[in-house]
Amino acid sequence: MRGRDDMNPYFSRRAFLEGALGVAGLNAVAGPARAVRPVSAPVLHQPGITTPQQSSIYFMTFDITAEKRADVAALMRRWTQAADAMMAGHAIPDFVDSGEAEGLSPKGLTLTFGFGPGLFTQDGRDRFGLASRRPAALADLPRFTGDQLVPARTGGDLSIQSCANDPQTALHAARVLARLAYGMAEPRWAQAGFLPDFGRHTTPRNLMGFKDGTMNPDTTSPRATDRFVWAAPDDVAWMQGGSYQVARIIRIALEHWDRMKVGFQEETMGRMKESGAPIGGHRESDPLDLKAQDHDGNPVIAENAHARLAAPSENGGAQILRRAYSYDNGLSFTAERWPPWHQGNELDAGLLFLCYQQDPRTGFTKIFDRMAKFDMMNQFTTHIGSGLFACPGRKPGTCIGAALLDA
Amino acid sequence: MRGRDDMNPYFSRRAFLEGALGVAGLNAVAGPARAVRPVSAPVLHQPGITTPQQSSIYFMTFDITAEKRADVAALMRRWTQAADAMMAGHAIPDFVDSGEAEGLSPKGLTLTFGFGPGLFTQDGRDRFGLASRRPAALADLPRFTGDQLVPARTGGDLSIQSCANDPQTALHAARVLARLAYGMAEPRWAQAGFLPDFGRHTTPRNLMGFKDGTMNPDTTSPRATDRFVWAAPDDVAWMQGGSYQVARIIRIALEHWDRMKVGFQEETMGRMKESGAPIGGHRESDPLDLKAQDHDGNPVIAENAHARLAAPSENGGAQILRRAYSYDNGLSFTAERWPPWHQGNELDAGLLFLCYQQDPRTGFTKIFDRMAKFDMMNQFTTHIGSGLFACPGRKPGTCIGAALLDA
Repeated sequence: MRGRDDMNPYFSRRAFLEGALGVAGLNAVAGPARAVRPVSAPVLHQPGITTPQQSSIYFMTFDITAEKRADVAALMRRWTQAADAMMAGHAIPDFVDSGEAEGLSPKGLTLTFGFGPGLFTQDGRDRFGLASRRPAALADLPRFTGDQLVPARTGGDLSIQSCANDPQTALHAARVLARLAYGMAEPRWAQAGFLPDFGRHTTPRNLMGFKDGTMNPDTTSPRATDRFVWAAPDDVAWMQGGSYQVARIIRIALEHWDRMKVGFQEETMGRMKESGAPIGGHRESDPLDLKAQDHDGNPVIAENAHARLAAPSENGGAQILRRAYSYDNGLSFTAERWPPWHQGNELDAGLLFLCYQQDPRTGFTKIFDRMAKFDMMNQFTTHIGSGLFACPGRKPGTCIGAALLDA
Repeated sequence: MRGRDDMNPYFSRRAFLEGALGVAGLNAVAGPARAVRPVSAPVLHQPGITTPQQSSIYFMTFDITAEKRADVAALMRRWTQAADAMMAGHAIPDFVDSGEAEGLSPKGLTLTFGFGPGLFTQDGRDRFGLASRRPAALADLPRFTGDQLVPARTGGDLSIQSCANDPQTALHAARVLARLAYGMAEPRWAQAGFLPDFGRHTTPRNLMGFKDGTMNPDTTSPRATDRFVWAAPDDVAWMQGGSYQVARIIRIALEHWDRMKVGFQEETMGRMKESGAPIGGHRESDPLDLKAQDHDGNPVIAENAHARLAAPSENGGAQILRRAYSYDNGLSFTAERWPPWHQGNELDAGLLFLCYQQDPRTGFTKIFDRMAKFDMMNQFTTHIGSGLFACPGRKPGTCIGAALLDA
């Protein structure tokens, strides 16, 4: 992908900390990260959250099999050390690498780690003595209307989001981290995804053929990210500088979608297909005019259009930072429940939807609860996987989660 | 992928035909193709065979549901027209595109079509009156030692190899072609794959961390391709300018491989991991010295090393043109049959192995039959999918398969 390996200019413009963080006395070098609140002990955000999306993702979750908190802390130290090395394009200390990324540049690799509800409480048990430190914002997601979650693609005690401008680099990093977890955590589910290179300043199209990501908060505005992306100042101390990650695997009935007329697709989306403009508007960046009516007095953007239901103004100002990728898992047998009642092998493809937010209760859950009930697009989409994770900030010189696990 | 969108210089050096082929009177433009034997009616090779590998592949096979040969011929006309348009970056005539590649360049897209044994004979039935025209070289593959072929990932009457320097472009083309086949052919299996960009003049590494593709015949030498890649002059007329495609999905027990010492991996491969040189050699391009012995009189390259068993000199000079991609389908539950007897979710990943040859009986089958029995690497690899297809040449102004289906 041309130009994507460049350092994100946002990071270099801001108070960007890079260099030897001295984790555990090793020559670790941090990947892109940004300092917040430059007080005595600045906290770094993890990379891969406000970082512009790379072209490939490998997302993986783990069940912890270790029984002691000290082992989990040791795993996070090892993971942090390895991640810092890989993001900088260095060899991982004391490790025989599988080698498939040998000779490749880091390709903009970012690794983002998250803690799931199971780290705090498992089947009602306070397994690591951390239950009292679970953030209120990490409340289990409710069951949404239409959810068809497959247990083998849902949940996890830990998550790794590996993003790079090359699929082998993204997979390599996850594979290495899974190896480093042997005996302490077992892979639970994984999903690869991709984002085509439409060029800078062009919103990519998803597999439905529409531009996706138009509505994100401005990640170059600290005011916007402090309000919508980063944990609130009154959140628990170990989450300062962190963000909450929601992952959903959304299968799209693409063959069915393809049979719909473009006009109906646009009505469903609330946007024009070619330009990305809201219906009634002209340019992608035009605001949604949700009050506009046609000459019969009907809303120009339908009451149950996707764009309307997702709009901040319809959700009490709620915003989330979307970081979605397309996924494709080949074919699987499907029996369609609508005309033309087709049965056969259809694409198991859709959206690996990831989003970051200050609080999932006022972010994803607030927005998606209504969409799950009313969005016209639900005719074509099914949520088949889900995950919820707290991605803490990090103090220089410490490993990810140290403020939680070492305390 | 930097530089990969460039036209292959090989094509422009040779008698490269490009331009309006006038298929069915429409403004179709051919993708990269090369003329052979410039006699009165030159035959073009299909693109995607000797074309340098792009970074993404989407491979898909189909079962024909149409019952008349004329319908299959019509499908191939429609597919050819659509493929020519997509490869040239043009809109497909009389077609509402799903749109997810709108605004993307063709990204070096090549589409390669193949005919499987089922087009000629199905369950002993001459379904389209073509049984007598089945080439001898399209003999069913034998069952190889160790084969664990999954029916849902094996076979097909038709194949499409869609390669591009972008995964969404490769998937888009296959999806469009599947739509154009509605009512005439049903998708049977599909597998996506990727090849990292190690830069020009560098052999990419596969997921085992070794350089892959070192042993290919020289595709810039017509003498080599005429002998090893393109159908023989005495093959059936409709296959002139064509090639035979073998597809194998090879799952690799990566977690097990990762536990092996590098020295053992190198012994298994017969090559050094870092340099790619044969054991005993210094450079990747060094010839395999299969007679070399150590001071105990043992062969330097083990008798059952992968590189030895694959070497032309060990196979009566047989050569095939490998065009392999790595694949990754997330995790699946696996119970390992060797120490450390691990049970759990492991990577469902490995090699989407494609190869092209003059005759699979003297190409893939000859080479792989011995490897399936003896190759040390079989401890780590399992063939779980398979396909065999004849990819015909094409006369200018006609569609792919016209010489077979319209006759």
